[in-house]
Amino acid sequence: MPTATRVVCEQLAPTIADLAGNQRLVLETIARDVADGADIVVLPELATSGYVFESAEEARSVALRRDDPFFARVAELLTGTDAVAIFGFCEQSDGDELYNSAAVVTATGVVEVYRKVHLWDRETLVFTPGSAAPPVVDTAHGRVGVMVCYDLEFPEMPRSVALAGADLIAVPTNWPFTDVPAGERAPEVIHAQSSARANGVFIACCDRAGIERGQHWTEGTVIVDQFGWPIDRASGVARATADVFLHLARDKSISPHNDLLADRRPDVYPKGAAR
Amino acid sequence: MPTATRVVCEQLAPTIADLAGNQRLVLETIARDVADGADIVVLPELATSGYVFESAEEARSVALRRDDPFFARVAELLTGTDAVAIFGFCEQSDGDELYNSAAVVTATGVVEVYRKVHLWDRETLVFTPGSAAPPVVDTAHGRVGVMVCYDLEFPEMPRSVALAGADLIAVPTNWPFTDVPAGERAPEVIHAQSSARANGVFIACCDRAGIERGQHWTEGTVIVDQFGWPIDRASGVARATADVFLHLARDKSISPHNDLLADRRPDVYPKGAAR
Repeated sequence: MPTATRVVCEQLAPTIADLAGNQRLVLETIARDVADGADIVVLPELATSGYVFESAEEARSVALRRDDPFFARVAELLTGTDAVAIFGFCEQSDGDELYNSAAVVTATGVVEVYRKVHLWDRETLVFTPGSAAPPVVDTAHGRVGVMVCYDLEFPEMPRSVALAGADLIAVPTNWPFTDVPAGERAPEVIHAQSSARANGVFIACCDRAGIERGQHWTEGTVIVDQFGWPIDRASGVARATADVFLHLARDKSISPHNDLLADRRPDVYPKGAAR
Repeated sequence: MPTATRVVCEQLAPTIADLAGNQRLVLETIARDVADGADIVVLPELATSGYVFESAEEARSVALRRDDPFFARVAELLTGTDAVAIFGFCEQSDGDELYNSAAVVTATGVVEVYRKVHLWDRETLVFTPGSAAPPVVDTAHGRVGVMVCYDLEFPEMPRSVALAGADLIAVPTNWPFTDVPAGERAPEVIHAQSSARANGVFIACCDRAGIERGQHWTEGTVIVDQFGWPIDRASGVARATADVFLHLARDKSISPHNDLLADRRPDVYPKGAAR
């Protein structure tokens, strides 16, 4: 009998360039969520660094290498559990590059680091774009795909991880606030809904809160089910929680004659439509 | 100075298996819309035949070859205009196959016939799936991509026609009614919004009305702008109208550093994500 997985998104408000303070915030948040029974904790993009950098130098000052002892402290919090923590951080490569990355951490340590492939706006002045496909991590709770923010707006990305078997896509984000017509929701949420439904996967987008150097955020954190419907959302500094049966994402059948992935017609799609 | 294009979607209620009656309905509707200044008229999927066939034989009894004189009558209505009519019909091939097709007709006659690639549910018992990519037709008003109903739920499809230069995607549909959670809209509309925004294209989905052999329809006709926002919708037997500047779809820039299509990373997407 499958058990429910508790997915928690923490819409935190990191402080720009305050590495120590943000690390404390991340550690305290994960510790609390795990104590509350969270199985998968998703935190925002660039949670340990903040987002609106004045320069690459400032970003570098709060960057972490993937062997930084901080990750071991996160893993330590998870000891004795099969919980998974996914959060964004500013990554210092072995060379000079900075990446807008997301770490997947379990009690065993860092199991995956994904480097954001599609950079948004002025991120291009700070970060090197990633060059590897988004990972799908086989966890105790199911298979978790990981991407960051703007990545999700390229339908090739959720499709990629769904084809690789993802049950849930975890998306650390910092969604800059944008006006929408009356009665409409944030466009990024619409993308999440559409991608969840098109691929039959759960999607957990963890946005951030707070105003940073004049930048307002959508505060649009949302956990979407495999049919594309929002289960929980968060407003302000708050968390969204959903107890979900992730194995349901493995059934792609949507009518007696249809299957979301098997119905694809790669023989028909022009090569340009994906590569 | 670019001029606005008037896009009209006619949410008709065809009668199952009444070929003559449906043909009259289609002709009268197109004539009226063109008289009202429509530049691009989109009608539902299978507008000349109805949808809920009891058998392939019944479908065959209302099928049209693409050289059927009916199409010349549609073209005649458009004489002296640069209007474009796009509508679904049950197509009899030169062989035994039936296709769920959409015709693009101008004053010069049939300029394109698209055969639905992704068949929904019991359509698979009647129709042969198409084997050609969705077309992009260069019209007097802009470049119009064409696909049918369930096709739009495969993000590869809108992406394909956007990469081929479509400004507008015309989507004849018959959306079977489905319950949605309180406060939510039809999932097909969410797909249209997401696809429009991800590709920076206008999308005109023309659904149908009426109850056919117990089947209710979403009556979800919607014209979406290139940012993904609905401009007009229709309820019941009604039309949706939008005066749009289709050339705006050629600007894919969404920040000083971002371009919807150029930002794609086909080098990163796994081959499986599209073919």
